[in-house]
Amino acid sequence: MEPIRAVIWGLGTMGSLMAKILSEKEGIEITGAVDLNPNKTGKSLGAITGSSRHGEITVTADAGEALAQEADLVLLATSSFISETAEPVRQIVKSGKNVITIAEEWAFPRRTAPKVAEEIDRLAKTFGVTVLGTGVNPGFVLDTLIISLSGTCAGVSKITARRVNDLSPFGPTVMASQGIGLSPEEFGKGLENGAISGHIGFEQSIHMIASSLGIRLERITQSLEPIISRTSRKTPCVSISPGQVAGCNHRAEGWSDGRPVIILEHPQQVHPETENVETGDFIHIEGRPDIRLAIQPEIPGGTATAALAVNMIPHVLNAPAGLACMADLPVPSARLADFRQFLK
Amino acid sequence: MEPIRAVIWGLGTMGSLMAKILSEKEGIEITGAVDLNPNKTGKSLGAITGSSRHGEITVTADAGEALAQEADLVLLATSSFISETAEPVRQIVKSGKNVITIAEEWAFPRRTAPKVAEEIDRLAKTFGVTVLGTGVNPGFVLDTLIISLSGTCAGVSKITARRVNDLSPFGPTVMASQGIGLSPEEFGKGLENGAISGHIGFEQSIHMIASSLGIRLERITQSLEPIISRTSRKTPCVSISPGQVAGCNHRAEGWSDGRPVIILEHPQQVHPETENVETGDFIHIEGRPDIRLAIQPEIPGGTATAALAVNMIPHVLNAPAGLACMADLPVPSARLADFRQFLK
Repeated sequence: MEPIRAVIWGLGTMGSLMAKILSEKEGIEITGAVDLNPNKTGKSLGAITGSSRHGEITVTADAGEALAQEADLVLLATSSFISETAEPVRQIVKSGKNVITIAEEWAFPRRTAPKVAEEIDRLAKTFGVTVLGTGVNPGFVLDTLIISLSGTCAGVSKITARRVNDLSPFGPTVMASQGIGLSPEEFGKGLENGAISGHIGFEQSIHMIASSLGIRLERITQSLEPIISRTSRKTPCVSISPGQVAGCNHRAEGWSDGRPVIILEHPQQVHPETENVETGDFIHIEGRPDIRLAIQPEIPGGTATAALAVNMIPHVLNAPAGLACMADLPVPSARLADFRQFLK
Repeated sequence: MEPIRAVIWGLGTMGSLMAKILSEKEGIEITGAVDLNPNKTGKSLGAITGSSRHGEITVTADAGEALAQEADLVLLATSSFISETAEPVRQIVKSGKNVITIAEEWAFPRRTAPKVAEEIDRLAKTFGVTVLGTGVNPGFVLDTLIISLSGTCAGVSKITARRVNDLSPFGPTVMASQGIGLSPEEFGKGLENGAISGHIGFEQSIHMIASSLGIRLERITQSLEPIISRTSRKTPCVSISPGQVAGCNHRAEGWSDGRPVIILEHPQQVHPETENVETGDFIHIEGRPDIRLAIQPEIPGGTATAALAVNMIPHVLNAPAGLACMADLPVPSARLADFRQFLK
């Protein structure tokens, strides 16, 4: 049996990390790489990942060319948004390849983008492939893991979960999207003009949970509050003085029967330890039984997102055709052996 | 669409709990109940569960009679062992019904009982039904949950997990199987003559993890140690003086490449709080990233096992025919709406 063939589309931090992880895996090889960045196109993938296994792959800006080759799946890591990834997903599906994307809005698009979701589901069935959105969050910590825990409950009355993380390793794009380093007034303006987006994926996570458990949602409300620093904090790309914004506390509530029943919170800030804030993933399911889970420190977003995308490959290849979410497929799993042995 | 029809086979603590949970659910009804206990046969199921919905179901000792009726699935809760449940499973499958059992040895029988596992897999495929073993442990805490977390890892070098629980609510059968209240000498004899079994399911959990991750196991070793009390402890069915056995620490190790890579520990004792032992479920995955999870207190075994069996019903009805384990099916989920809405 030939190795599984994967194309990587998007060689930013996440796509490059997926390529590195794949370079350590057996029974699967990268057969194509797409990126629009002129600093990357024309180079060998090996120059980007540092893996000798990728020396013969040339990064191309021409997705059509990459998709014209036979392959089993494409890992798509170019954008968070359906508006920017629907066309690439269409193109990949029409080329007969499975899709795994870390675009947050693909984690559960059935409610938030029902027309595109239905179209892609039909298209995927026509071409006999599976499309999956995954990642650490949305995709795992604040949805799949919660759903999975709830499986031990005879009843559930309320779910509250918090992902408290350290933004310090991230670059200027993420800092800007969270308003880090701004004054409280500038943060307010950034919220108004849309420059500050906070976390992308709350609606998808809440809809995924509600759909799995059978909760009829009336509405989802969201709020973003600045985390004002009392300390001086510094990262390679931003310096924060007391009184400035060190983070963004993004909170979302899914309402049913007139009350919030799924409450997700994601306070993200740089150097939380300077104010003794412990990072972690925390889940509280009020039900029969009550369940309190803590993962400390939090599952780190970068590695975990790239690892999930890679680890889900066998499940996606085994799955029936169509648009899938993490709750439709078997539980994710690390893959320590030849990937072909996980195929059915 | 008619409600889903479930038969319950075995009305001990767990089977009765499943019936109670089902009595609160919509779109599913109990259409038959089997138990050999003469104190239960001939009575209405409602007299056992206290639910008015079960008033018309008469408990029968005649499984053949119960299986002659049409139904979608049977919840089997009679024994921990394949030796005692293989024939019931065969009977159910041949009657064209799906099987969900909490018999620990069915959680992952492919390695520990390969002949029966293959036979039942073939038989289930012939009759177009699915057979699943589930429960809180084996079935969730020390296998499915670990596998699921590992999905966020690019690599895993070692897994260590502990389920520390309080045995106080359990009855005399469980106390005897753990050697509670014995002297250390009697505990040693109980181990030798097989009266003390400890936890049932470690081999199944370790094989399920190894199979999902692709770890080639060389062997599984197990040890059982008495937990000698330094305090006086008392439950409705046992009294323990200092120096006597208050619990049993059962430990299992899955070895690969000459070293233990999957280490599961399940110290069970009565009133652990008298020696300041905190109960909980603890998982440590050494890998990239490292993950440390704690659920405190532990997910309570009784409710969670019964809830999992009930909650998995839609997944089992949706699954392809054959023998399945929890890692083959979508993540478990609480079911708060009409069960029919979860069917595909």
